[in-house]
Amino acid sequence: MGSSSALPTSTKYPAAHVLNVHERFFLIDCGEGTQMQLRKARIRFGRINHIFISHMHGDHVFGLPGFLSTLNLLGRKTPLFIYGPPGLKVIIDFYLQHFAADNDYPIILKGLTDKLYHKIYEDKVLEVFAFPLKHRIPTYGYHFCEKERPLNMRKDRVQAFNLSIKQILAAKAGEDVQTDDGAIIPNARLTEPPYKRRSFAYCSDTAYYRKNAEFLKETDLLYHEATFSEKDKELAKETGHSTAAQAAKFATQANVGQLLIGHFSNRYNDPTELLHEARAVFPDTMMAEELSDYPVKLIRKLS
Amino acid sequence: MGSSSALPTSTKYPAAHVLNVHERFFLIDCGEGTQMQLRKARIRFGRINHIFISHMHGDHVFGLPGFLSTLNLLGRKTPLFIYGPPGLKVIIDFYLQHFAADNDYPIILKGLTDKLYHKIYEDKVLEVFAFPLKHRIPTYGYHFCEKERPLNMRKDRVQAFNLSIKQILAAKAGEDVQTDDGAIIPNARLTEPPYKRRSFAYCSDTAYYRKNAEFLKETDLLYHEATFSEKDKELAKETGHSTAAQAAKFATQANVGQLLIGHFSNRYNDPTELLHEARAVFPDTMMAEELSDYPVKLIRKLS
Repeated sequence: MGSSSALPTSTKYPAAHVLNVHERFFLIDCGEGTQMQLRKARIRFGRINHIFISHMHGDHVFGLPGFLSTLNLLGRKTPLFIYGPPGLKVIIDFYLQHFAADNDYPIILKGLTDKLYHKIYEDKVLEVFAFPLKHRIPTYGYHFCEKERPLNMRKDRVQAFNLSIKQILAAKAGEDVQTDDGAIIPNARLTEPPYKRRSFAYCSDTAYYRKNAEFLKETDLLYHEATFSEKDKELAKETGHSTAAQAAKFATQANVGQLLIGHFSNRYNDPTELLHEARAVFPDTMMAEELSDYPVKLIRKLS
Repeated sequence: MGSSSALPTSTKYPAAHVLNVHERFFLIDCGEGTQMQLRKARIRFGRINHIFISHMHGDHVFGLPGFLSTLNLLGRKTPLFIYGPPGLKVIIDFYLQHFAADNDYPIILKGLTDKLYHKIYEDKVLEVFAFPLKHRIPTYGYHFCEKERPLNMRKDRVQAFNLSIKQILAAKAGEDVQTDDGAIIPNARLTEPPYKRRSFAYCSDTAYYRKNAEFLKETDLLYHEATFSEKDKELAKETGHSTAAQAAKFATQANVGQLLIGHFSNRYNDPTELLHEARAVFPDTMMAEELSDYPVKLIRKLS
């Protein structure tokens, strides 16, 4: 939703990103204007049940009061979970105490204080881990990891054997299937190996922080901030940000599949120069652009 | 900057408007996304020294923390004046206490409590008056009135008589001018009658409130909310809003020059139906659209 750092422009919005995991939508950071950007992206607000906030700088959170308010006006009743530094309570209180006497859905703040890489969320298909980044104030990164995926049914076989839902579920769980006439169909005839588990990591805002590469190894898609160019690396250091080259160096160390850079300073007229800088170090780098999709491909495991 | 009511869409932003009075820019309301809209409109942030807030509903104020923060990051040092209900202190405190330990310019809140139509601002060319509107919480409207304008210099005469700045100022003040060789040029040969004083009034959010028409008589341009259509007038009444027909009726009573309606509910796919409804009552009605200009023409007084 937003590729800008602290000073948005007419085309670049503050930090906000949506991760779609099997049609569950996870909102990561919520800068000013997020709700309008979500509308432009045609994302249904009711699909968002979890928000992950990196830190308490305005360009990552000033969209929260408006988004929380809109959810209420839309009639939301289901709980909304917000993960991030405990200081976030200030924003939720600001909204609840002064703008939403009638707020009608539970807002559950999960304040993070653990300094280790640790699991903060789990459902049937996904685990999410949080870990500290290196910034001027307490800041968390997030690591979204698919769980082991089930076997893939071969559609032609489902039709050929006229399998029931129950039989399909058994096959997906790895079992052989008995047909009505008593024949046993071996699982290998019905299924194919599953796709590889996919993962996404979010590192913004942060200075270059090598240590984190350890537990982000082999991540498929890494979003890493690249606020500055290498020629402004002193400024990056002072302000707790990364250069594009540093983001790429981190991607190399973590051996990620692809790198997506963003959180660009508006001092660069065209962040393409940051893209070139990163690609010189880590070729498979993309540049975040508003309202663009960055799919993580499904790759079949070798059986 | 924004023509939407509480639920913005991909194209309609929450309430925010800029009044340009001789290149002084006055910001009226500051909904979420105002700073990005100001960028799109190419309005220089440093030109805004006064913000007028109608009331403490999120769609009129959630852009304030981001705008205040951006002014600081841009290096502002000059004072910023904010007018509106005293409850606004909550937002300024929210910003100052949690997001701007380093805020480097004075923010001066002028909390309004007076229930009468009263002057709240004055400079060389302009007076601004505040007055209560009729909404669910304390809400103020604003009336911007040019002061009596000076006489207009006739450019051909300035050249013909090779007048100095001092002589021009004297002529604009209505004096006759003495040339270097002692001749007296009568004022009427140098000047033309001034333009009429212009005025603009802002009424949002408000239910239909006839009383206010008294002191807004002959206003050149009236911005009046038209959240609902007449077919939803019960809803308008319940929520303290106006229908388009009511906005037009108010414009008729105040005998304004032109009416500009806005703050549209997103239940209407196309607010043009609200425009038609208003025009049936008050023909010289316009419909607010994002990033459009609505000039108030200069009309020469008859001498």
